[in-house]
Amino acid sequence: MRIAVLCGGVGGARFLRGLREHLRAVGGSGDGGSHEITAIVNVGDDMWLTGLRITPDLDSIMYTLAGANDDIRGWGRRDESERVAGELAAYGAGWEWFTLGDLDLGTHIARSGLLREGLPLSAATDRITARWPLGVRLIPATDDEVETQVHVADRTMHLQEWWTRYRASIPALSFEYRNAPASSPAPGVLEAIASADVIVLAPSNPVVSIAPILAIPGIREAVLASPAPVIGVSPIIAGAVVRGMADACLSAIGVATTADAVALHYRARSAGGILDAWLVDEADAALLPAIEAGGITASAVPLRMSDLGLSAALARDVLAVAARL
Amino acid sequence: MRIAVLCGGVGGARFLRGLREHLRAVGGSGDGGSHEITAIVNVGDDMWLTGLRITPDLDSIMYTLAGANDDIRGWGRRDESERVAGELAAYGAGWEWFTLGDLDLGTHIARSGLLREGLPLSAATDRITARWPLGVRLIPATDDEVETQVHVADRTMHLQEWWTRYRASIPALSFEYRNAPASSPAPGVLEAIASADVIVLAPSNPVVSIAPILAIPGIREAVLASPAPVIGVSPIIAGAVVRGMADACLSAIGVATTADAVALHYRARSAGGILDAWLVDEADAALLPAIEAGGITASAVPLRMSDLGLSAALARDVLAVAARL
Repeated sequence: MRIAVLCGGVGGARFLRGLREHLRAVGGSGDGGSHEITAIVNVGDDMWLTGLRITPDLDSIMYTLAGANDDIRGWGRRDESERVAGELAAYGAGWEWFTLGDLDLGTHIARSGLLREGLPLSAATDRITARWPLGVRLIPATDDEVETQVHVADRTMHLQEWWTRYRASIPALSFEYRNAPASSPAPGVLEAIASADVIVLAPSNPVVSIAPILAIPGIREAVLASPAPVIGVSPIIAGAVVRGMADACLSAIGVATTADAVALHYRARSAGGILDAWLVDEADAALLPAIEAGGITASAVPLRMSDLGLSAALARDVLAVAARL
Repeated sequence: MRIAVLCGGVGGARFLRGLREHLRAVGGSGDGGSHEITAIVNVGDDMWLTGLRITPDLDSIMYTLAGANDDIRGWGRRDESERVAGELAAYGAGWEWFTLGDLDLGTHIARSGLLREGLPLSAATDRITARWPLGVRLIPATDDEVETQVHVADRTMHLQEWWTRYRASIPALSFEYRNAPASSPAPGVLEAIASADVIVLAPSNPVVSIAPILAIPGIREAVLASPAPVIGVSPIIAGAVVRGMADACLSAIGVATTADAVALHYRARSAGGILDAWLVDEADAALLPAIEAGGITASAVPLRMSDLGLSAALARDVLAVAARL
């Protein structure tokens, strides 16, 4: 089975880890089995910082699938240290509010070196991820630099600044996926979507993880045209975000922080949107009729990926819904 | 007093530290006193490595003057660690024979970030060195990328590879200061030479530290034209290099590893060379007549800079010779 997953960082990483686990349990995956998982990863969080290209979502997924992530903190590398960061601060380099761990910097430096040699991000990602047997192919949504910008009342800032420095506390008026109109999908993205047996929208932030992927010309069209069912997983449970600050993003685009509102925002493929089915948490079972009324097949299952078993069970539920469509 | 010092890394660093100490003792230096020391630093060892610009000589001098160097090992930062380097190796990035310490990487990243922003190396160096009250102004000899290449029997390699990887064990046929003919002195270099009261050639490698500086069009001419006396300090004592592998470099250009041969290689300014005076170690006092015969004022003094006091005494001796010319 070929599964294409559109995703952001932490939520995407947990879902992918669960999907890999489930497929291994039922008979092989990227480790030589008969299943192929391709993650099409948001690059809107990416940025150049003191000469290094930082790709937070790609790294979160890689570290999580490699088992090298810091599960307690929720991001970055386990057993991390910050010796280099202390030097950068002493030189006045970087952003004091953006932590660059030593182990993480190894990834940034290796990747930036490859980019400086002229490799596109997708090829650099292939080289970087080759270090670990991930069992999932990671492809950046685009090789172009499409960075999400946040317009607030008096200025525009990079998503990282709004998110990490200000913790989304400054009201966002709108989001801009800068350079998206001129960008192209990275090699392999459209092929993965076109040849997929199932397409999944991971439970990632709809505004700053999934939307920047769909803003790249050709990707939304490929999802629309694919013969595969498209299953989305709600990042909202019981009117609250599971992690992150999606509420601050959703309110900026006029979407309520509820599982049904997000589904209806994505819209049914039959209505020109991108969803065939949508999974909400059991706590949101009352919302199923509203979602179905929008032409989207809806199911309520446990969505919290608190451990690997729950993540694998969610992946199983996603594939079960896909099989029934 | 204004003193311009042409120098490479470790030998240059020790001499500059002694010079600063001597001038502080006799009445102020770069820390608000009446003396100005400008180091015109070799960039031939510089290179791009995994997307970072490494400038070994500038860094050796900065760390030494800042008191942050590893005096035992002879290079790099004190209390260094190599967490990032382990990651780079795991990704197959960098050169396994070229150590990148964590603290040192902080410098490389900060500098590379500034260069990527478009600052020339000299301006980046001003920013980087501003972290510490060095008491010495460091200027790269050029803002251009003039990297020393070593021609051996079957190929050409960067000086770093020949020096660090092969420990100069492959016979060098010649050295090439690549791109030097098209390069220009960095801002401040010619001014420092023209306005100096004394010009010093530090006891640095004549072939791969001093020659790459003099290969930059305009610098040799400025030294020739300066009204200031030019005093050189021999990097050779009793027919042996004090540190490094200058013998392997000198033999490639047909110069004996002796204090007099190096002086006569530099030649007297009166004969179109660059030296007015040359200091050899007391152990080489017998060589003084040969040097004087070349039109170069020669003196024998203790040259070994084993500690700060000896380094300061050498600086005192250099200035005393200059005062007598």
